Amino acid sequence: MLTLFHCASARSFRPLWTLEEVGIPYDLKMLPFPPRFLKREYLELNPLGTIPLLIDGETRMTESSAICHYLVTKYGPTPLNVTVDEPAYGSYLNWLFFGEATLTFPQTIYFRYAQLEPEERRNPQAATDYARWFLARLRSLETAVSESETVCAGRFTAADISVGYALMFAQSNGLSAQFTPAVAAYWERLKQREGFRKAIAAQDKAGAEQGVAPRVPAAT
Amino acid sequence: MLTLFHCASARSFRPLWTLEEVGIPYDLKMLPFPPRFLKREYLELNPLGTIPLLIDGETRMTESSAICHYLVTKYGPTPLNVTVDEPAYGSYLNWLFFGEATLTFPQTIYFRYAQLEPEERRNPQAATDYARWFLARLRSLETAVSESETVCAGRFTAADISVGYALMFAQSNGLSAQFTPAVAAYWERLKQREGFRKAIAAQDKAGAEQGVAPRVPAAT
Repeated sequence: MLTLFHCASARSFRPLWTLEEVGIPYDLKMLPFPPRFLKREYLELNPLGTIPLLIDGETRMTESSAICHYLVTKYGPTPLNVTVDEPAYGSYLNWLFFGEATLTFPQTIYFRYAQLEPEERRNPQAATDYARWFLARLRSLETAVSESETVCAGRFTAADISVGYALMFAQSNGLSAQFTPAVAAYWERLKQREGFRKAIAAQDKAGAEQGVAPRVPAAT
Repeated sequence: MLTLFHCASARSFRPLWTLEEVGIPYDLKMLPFPPRFLKREYLELNPLGTIPLLIDGETRMTESSAICHYLVTKYGPTPLNVTVDEPAYGSYLNWLFFGEATLTFPQTIYFRYAQLEPEERRNPQAATDYARWFLARLRSLETAVSESETVCAGRFTAADISVGYALMFAQSNGLSAQFTPAVAAYWERLKQREGFRKAIAAQDKAGAEQGVAPRVPAAT
């Protein structure tokens, strides 16, 4: 049985969503955010103190988009994977990385310096710089999802989960107010998926059972 | 023939290094840094203005670590790939993403606000925060490369290229002065590889032929 350590609506939502889409059984352990301050004993399992942590036998993984690709390749076959012989293979890998490295990280800087830090440590320059940086990079998503329902391969894949979480984060931190029309419509399509709804329900249920409050308003 | 658009010793060094390690023929196009200001016509090829850009037939890719995995899976078999049936598969994917999302992005914030921006836009708080953030995350690399010559699978893989470029960037921006001993020794091992040396030679040669000056002192 796979074990996923998760904070509500944080990056670990990517593997949770993937598990629900593919239908892989899992054990969900909810943590308060940020776990490295609020749950010190978690550091024994993951010295980085970050989420997600996926435990699958001897395998330990901490990078959310890497886990998505791991799950769809290891526990497939599933249409959520794009295989090396498909024309969209390179595009799939690119969006998988783009969703995290290019679309999520800049938002964490915005979120930190505009909202998370105490007043005296807010940093409007860095917050504004990286909000702009995110919105500029989002233009390439606008192009992709104007032409297609999903980012690649003509179907929903793990790359949409990687990119989709970046949009979910933008919704919770307010940057989604600046989504262009095709990006906003794509995000609405993603939220209608049964796998997305199941993942939201799973974190709500596990959070209630384990007494862990949600970090942010539910992203639905 | 693959075409790689590259700025000397920037993130696009990852695909260049991979091409040399695997022995895949390629055409190298050198650009001044940052290309979106110094080579406006590049925006027609890559509207993001970022490097790398890999063109392989109909495939266009811009995420450096994604390209490494693309090359070793598409142009293998090569020991630089870790396949889904190997015990280190999850670890390999994790390091591949970790090298970029967790070890490189925070350094770009440090570099921007400590060195790249004009004086009046320097931001010591953000620079210091993300230098610390990078060095804290580097602790998990210290553990991994204390116990093994490489990050996973008991051999050199594309994951070492992803992580290795983060160390190369740290050398050019000065954060390498704070490497712990096992990380410093690992970085020395990586620089001794024939593939690494060939990639450095290739960018020097192409830069000279195409009249593009190196961005930073050669990272050797």
